[in-house]
Order: sequence, then C-alpha cells, then structure tokens
Amino acid sequence: MTHPTVPAGRTHLDNGGRAPWHPLARTAFLQALDDGWADPRRLHTEGRRAAALLDGAREAVAGVLGARTEEVRFTPSHTASLHAAVAHVTQARRRHGSDVVVGAVERAAVLHAADRSAPPGGRRVTVPVDHHGRVDADAFAAAVSAGDVALAALQHANGEVGTTQPVDAVHEATRAAGVPLLVDAGASVGHAVVGPAWDVLAADPADWGAPAGVGIVAVRHRTRTVPTGPEDPEPWAPGGVSVPAAFAAAVALQAVNEDRSHEDARRRSLVEDVRARVAQIPDVEVVGDPSGRLPHVVTFSFLYVDGEALVSELDRAGFAVGSGSACTASTLEPSHVLAAMGVLTHGNVRIALDRSTTSADVERFLDVLPGAVATVRDMLGVQGL
Amino acid sequence: MTHPTVPAGRTHLDNGGRAPWHPLARTAFLQALDDGWADPRRLHTEGRRAAALLDGAREAVAGVLGARTEEVRFTPSHTASLHAAVAHVTQARRRHGSDVVVGAVERAAVLHAADRSAPPGGRRVTVPVDHHGRVDADAFAAAVSAGDVALAALQHANGEVGTTQPVDAVHEATRAAGVPLLVDAGASVGHAVVGPAWDVLAADPADWGAPAGVGIVAVRHRTRTVPTGPEDPEPWAPGGVSVPAAFAAAVALQAVNEDRSHEDARRRSLVEDVRARVAQIPDVEVVGDPSGRLPHVVTFSFLYVDGEALVSELDRAGFAVGSGSACTASTLEPSHVLAAMGVLTHGNVRIALDRSTTSADVERFLDVLPGAVATVRDMLGVQGL
Repeated sequence: MTHPTVPAGRTHLDNGGRAPWHPLARTAFLQALDDGWADPRRLHTEGRRAAALLDGAREAVAGVLGARTEEVRFTPSHTASLHAAVAHVTQARRRHGSDVVVGAVERAAVLHAADRSAPPGGRRVTVPVDHHGRVDADAFAAAVSAGDVALAALQHANGEVGTTQPVDAVHEATRAAGVPLLVDAGASVGHAVVGPAWDVLAADPADWGAPAGVGIVAVRHRTRTVPTGPEDPEPWAPGGVSVPAAFAAAVALQAVNEDRSHEDARRRSLVEDVRARVAQIPDVEVVGDPSGRLPHVVTFSFLYVDGEALVSELDRAGFAVGSGSACTASTLEPSHVLAAMGVLTHGNVRIALDRSTTSADVERFLDVLPGAVATVRDMLGVQGL
Repeated sequence: MTHPTVPAGRTHLDNGGRAPWHPLARTAFLQALDDGWADPRRLHTEGRRAAALLDGAREAVAGVLGARTEEVRFTPSHTASLHAAVAHVTQARRRHGSDVVVGAVERAAVLHAADRSAPPGGRRVTVPVDHHGRVDADAFAAAVSAGDVALAALQHANGEVGTTQPVDAVHEATRAAGVPLLVDAGASVGHAVVGPAWDVLAADPADWGAPAGVGIVAVRHRTRTVPTGPEDPEPWAPGGVSVPAAFAAAVALQAVNEDRSHEDARRRSLVEDVRARVAQIPDVEVVGDPSGRLPHVVTFSFLYVDGEALVSELDRAGFAVGSGSACTASTLEPSHVLAAMGVLTHGNVRIALDRSTTSADVERFLDVLPGAVATVRDMLGVQGL
C-alpha cells in the first residue's frame, strides 16, 4: 500500500520514534480539532468538551497499557516523559535513596536525567549489557538491592537494535527491594505486549504513527512522585498538551493494538528475510538478539563504511533509513548503545518497518543495499580489502 | 462570519490564550503534515524536509517579532517558555545576581518560576500595580537598580484585563542596570505591536488561533542562557516539537499580523461598546485601563455575583466567556491579577474577541448579559439589594 504521506518513489524504512501518521490518527485529529480546540481547564461547554476528549483519550490509553485512567498523563514528548519521570520519582524518594540504577543501553534522556536528578551524594549506577544489548537480570537485581537506590530504569526493548530486556525478572527484584521501576516502553508500545511489570511506564505516540509533540506516562497509584519544576497545576505538562494530538494518539494506539499480533507475525517474517540476506554481504555484523526482539526493528553494521555516507547513498536511491543514534544531524557521535554492546559503532544502518511497509518495499531495499555498500566502500578506497 | 470550529448557536467570547484555529493554521498544518511528519534531526530527505519547514517557521516568526531567525526557539507551551526562560537566564546570571524582579500581575507561570529559580539567597521582588493593573516604570526601575538582580520580567500587556505595561521605559532601566528583561507577550503578539524592548520574548501561538502544544521564545543574541534540565540537544523543547504545529503557528502569525491594524480598529470599537453598555448594569466595575490596553480584551466584575455561576448561566444562553484566572476548573482561587489591582475578585467575566467575532455576536451578548446577571443574583437571594 502506498502511504498517503510518503511521496511516490520513496520508501521510508526509518519508522522508529517517528512514523508517518496512521490514517486513523489523522481522522481522529481532525475530528478532535472541531470539538477539542478549547482549553480543557475552562468551565464552559467548549472547555468541558475538550476535557471530555482528553479524559476519553486517557481512558483509551489506560485500557491498552493495563493501567487505571487516573494513572495516565500526557506530556510534551517522550523525552519530556523520561526527564520528568526520573526527576519526580527521585525527588519523592530522596529520603530513601540517592542512586539511580540504569541499563547501559537506556535512551540518552534516561541517562542524562539520572545524571542530573540523582540527589546530592547520589550517582548513576550503570548495569552493563551483553553482546546482544541485554542486561543480566541477576546483575541488575544485585545493583538494585545494594541499598541507597532511589529509582531503577530499564527499557522494555531497545529501539536501536530491537533487543528486549528481562523486565519481569527485574521488576520482581525491584519490588523486593522496594525500589520503583521506570520502564521506557517507547519503542515497544504499539508493537509488542508490554505487560504489567512496571511502576512507571513511558510510551511514545510518535513511534506508533501518532502526532509528535505529545508523550505518555503511566504512574502506578502506589508510586509516589513529587514534581521538581515551578508550581503548576499540570506538573507533567506545564501549560497542557494539544487535545487533538492526545486524542489522535489514543485512537491510533487502539487501532495498532487491534492488529498487533498480525503485524507482529508479518513484520517479524520480513525482518527474518532482512537478517538472512544482509548477512550474505561481506564484512557485515547483524546486531541485536535474533529472537528476543521487537518485531519490526533490525540493525546491522558494515566494516569499512561510514554510516552517514551510507544513509546518504541509500537516500539517493530512494530509501530512508536510520543509523542508530549515531546518524542524527544533532549528534554525530557513535551510538552509546552499540558501544555498550561491543559491536561496530560505525557503518551502521537501522531499519524500522511501519505498518505500511510491504514485502516489495523490503525486497527492493535488499536488492539495492549491496550496491550502495560497495559504492560507499569504493569512495573510501577500500574495494580491494 | 460563522467560524468552522464553533458550533451553530454558540458564540465563543473566550479567545484569550486559546482561540479557534485560524483557517490558514488548519491549511498550513495539513500541508506540513504531508511534508514535515518526519524527525527533523534525521539526515534523509524526509528529515531534511521537516528541518527545512521548521527553519522556515522560525524565520517567519522572527520576521514578525523583529528577531533574528537563530534567536527564535519553539517550546512545548507558553507556560513551558516562561518556566525555561526564567530558569535558563537566572542560571546564566547566577554570578551577577540572585533576585528576580517581576510585576505583580505577571502570569502565575512567571511568578512560580521566579520563586523556584531564584538562586540560593535570592528572592522574588514583586513590583505593585495601580488600579488599572499597570506597574510604575520608576518603581520597577528602582527595584531593578537595587543590585543583586538576575532577571526582570514584565509582561507586554495583561491577558486578563488588557492593560499594557511600560515596557519601553522599563527596558531602558534594565539595560542601564545590565539586567536582562523577559517580556511575556503571550496576550499581545498577533493583536498588538510589541516593539523591540525586550531581551527575552515569549509569545503564545494558541492565543492567535494556532495549535496548542507549541510555544515560542526569542532570546537576543547578546543574552546568555544556561539550560538547567538534563543534558539535551534541544534544551528549550527536549524531544522536539511538532513540526506541523510550529509551521501552522508561523503561518497563522503572518496572517494575523497582516490584518492587525484593521482588526485593532474593529475590535477596539466593539470593546468600547461593551465597556459603555456593561457600565450601565447596576453594581458593576469595568476593570483595566480604558485606553492603554489590548484591542480585544475587556473584563468586568459584578457585585453580589458568583463568577462561576455567571459563566455557567451565560454558557446555558450560548455564550462562552472566561473569568480571569479565577474560573478555570483547576484553580478556583480568586485571580491574583484582580487582587493585585485592588478590584473585585469575584463575579468576574473576561471577554476576548476573536477575529471571527462579529458585532452581531457582541450585540446578542450585551442583550443577554443583564438578564444573566439578574438570574444569578436572584439565585443568591440578593435581588432586593
């Protein structure tokens, strides 16, 4: 199917963290714009209608996440969710502990928030990952049980390489230690079953084809938080969020949740093809766990290739791909995720398949990829290697 | 004209801080959604196209504000703009001063951010206002010149009562004292000429009929800021903002700026009518400066009337009105603005006219208002007063 927002002749395979809007997100947004443009804090009919749409969105999201409606908050972005979650929980826990235990391949937002939010005397305790990018549950449990821990943070799955984390086992350990567990499910919700093993959960609407500019946090009733910013009636989103965007996020989440298992099988099979075919290209490393992974993400690194050059070469051929965290315009540093895994940090390509991605799209990409790699290697003068 | 997003039979007169989308905002949003849904930090064609739209939006906003493109930043909301502006400037100035000087009728976001951000030993110094809600420029200058001041904040005009502030004179004083001036122009930009008397300027797209969920800050090149949150490539909007929302904000701002002088005269004349007619209702106080004010805002307070009840009564009659900061669902406290002015804090109604508001809308409102006031007074049993 041709996606309405991807131009003809282009194939968008960089759908992690930001995907084209789901058709129902667009419909929901425009409907909510008619009914929900007003300030939901106002008491008149238009304000109450906007508030009702926002409440409905929270309820729908809660239903998918397995949370109570009142546990769900909208925020300005997934990064803002993670910053606020780390800050508000560590602030509430400052008398119980000062360290923040994290996995080594958490998002930069979690690592930086942990660096910033650990109370005086506190520090970030980083649990290493194996070659697939997975923390050892026992090692994580030991770090959490060491005492003086304010918060533990472990992602549900890694958005760069797809590897899932042992959140069930880790949540058992954090519960036993009385430490709240923040689960960054920003790459998982909408694609994988997340389950109930969390105290604070963050989900990213832009990742499932909903508007950017809105994030979601769920905080279990029993988990205390204390806002750290200026006094505000909405400490998770000072000034509020766009009601149409929140509503579109909820409608799209329900839609993708309904066809999740079909899309899991379909995209998992496409990713198998990619893994098998890419492995035949010389001097390549396909990274991430081959089985315990997200259904739609696959990452590989080429020796003797500059990642940015390869992204540009593929772009010229009509394919948009990502490159771990390495290849954004703002951070050209090597990915801390790939570095923590001990795999090649350069020449990296990440593919995240959208619901609109077809097997023909993937076939055409696999046909083009070896030539693109050869071209970039030629440019570097390494064709003789 | 019937506005497409206001239902038939309803008249929306609560357009301060949140107005129905300008028709061009809708068009621009949908156009930008096709071209700008991707992550603007990505290097592929779709990412670069989104980045170009965002840059174009910054350039257009800068043109209207009289700023350089690189001085303009998008944020998640107007409240977030004010929080970040106060925090980032006071952090940069912490070796020069610790107090924050503010006007008494600044937004709660500025007052709370000043309370929170004043460095250790610092305090918020609040300059009082007169009966119209205006600070005395000399008194403000004296407070700024007292030494040990990190930041001064003065709004361009008050969004609750419309009164403009002496920002030109105050900016001269803050410049002489070497103290940066934050000007909250959230109620002014799009409606009034703001001028160059600022070091940091905050503007609110939702106020001029653009999407909520995006704010604007301009920081003069010479004004230093130091982010206070977790390390992030975008400290004014961690995680970024919605590109279509930012683009729609810019397009709508250009549109409203083009017909600003026409809309100034038209709405100023409607407000004159309201002020004259409302003054004839018994036991009413029309508040705010009758001449030095925004063109589209008018506020009045009734004795022997509960503000919330009056808002509800008018709502039943088909009119949506505001009630200062008093009458939001989240804060039912009396407005600190009206209290600082020494006027009635209860029985308050605020009207903010949209571009789509007609003289017929206003006439119908003025016909209904006396009866609504009488009904609410009857309910309170004060008809004999």
